Amino acid sequence: MNKVIKELIDAADKAIKEERFDDLMDFYTEDAVLVVKPGLEAKGKDSLKKAFIKIAEYFKNSLVPRQGKMLMIEAGDTVLVLSQALLEADNKSESKYSMERRATYVYRNIDGKWLCAIDNSYGTALLDQP
Amino acid sequence: MNKVIKELIDAADKAIKEERFDDLMDFYTEDAVLVVKPGLEAKGKDSLKKAFIKIAEYFKNSLVPRQGKMLMIEAGDTVLVLSQALLEADNKSESKYSMERRATYVYRNIDGKWLCAIDNSYGTALLDQP
Repeated sequence: MNKVIKELIDAADKAIKEERFDDLMDFYTEDAVLVVKPGLEAKGKDSLKKAFIKIAEYFKNSLVPRQGKMLMIEAGDTVLVLSQALLEADNKSESKYSMERRATYVYRNIDGKWLCAIDNSYGTALLDQP
Repeated sequence: MNKVIKELIDAADKAIKEERFDDLMDFYTEDAVLVVKPGLEAKGKDSLKKAFIKIAEYFKNSLVPRQGKMLMIEAGDTVLVLSQALLEADNKSESKYSMERRATYVYRNIDGKWLCAIDNSYGTALLDQP
């Protein structure tokens, strides 16, 4: 387990909870991709920030993400994180999407700094789409 | 879908089927990681080659991997591939491991060439380990 990446993910979850979306962008590469929902990606920091604001609104500004069990597969400057993503929100019972996911995150070490390049909280469940 | 990566994955599957393990190593980065089975990783081309030879023996030299439904999330020089990995083998009914997996592969573009950095055919199912 890469402890630096674990701490970065926890700090990013805290930034989402506190709706500090400018701070949140510091955790991502310039051309990072976020899977907003199955079939919809956001790419690049401007799009990611807008997507996170919309996600916050969807959850009535009550979204609290945290990670449960986590595993990392580390290949030099590239790390695949497998993680239980546990989402809490006041209106979670209305969500169309699962609030307990098995996420896949890809981190890259760029100029000595670990950054999230791919943020896919849906993991391999995307393969279930029709 | 990145067609180049799709073709590389198909060519790697063919090399596994034909037990051309030296050729197979051309598809990987120098420090690539293969998840051999839950809890066991091989790292670097020498270890990967040995692991693939053992996997071939485990399946009585009859392993035929292929990919079903595939999705890719592409962030610049880093691509996360989500794929149904469908494994055939004469002794597949004896295998301790699922022969229909939802795999996660991470590809990196290094000096203009796409290479597999992380080969995890078990995907997020690794989180099920006790």
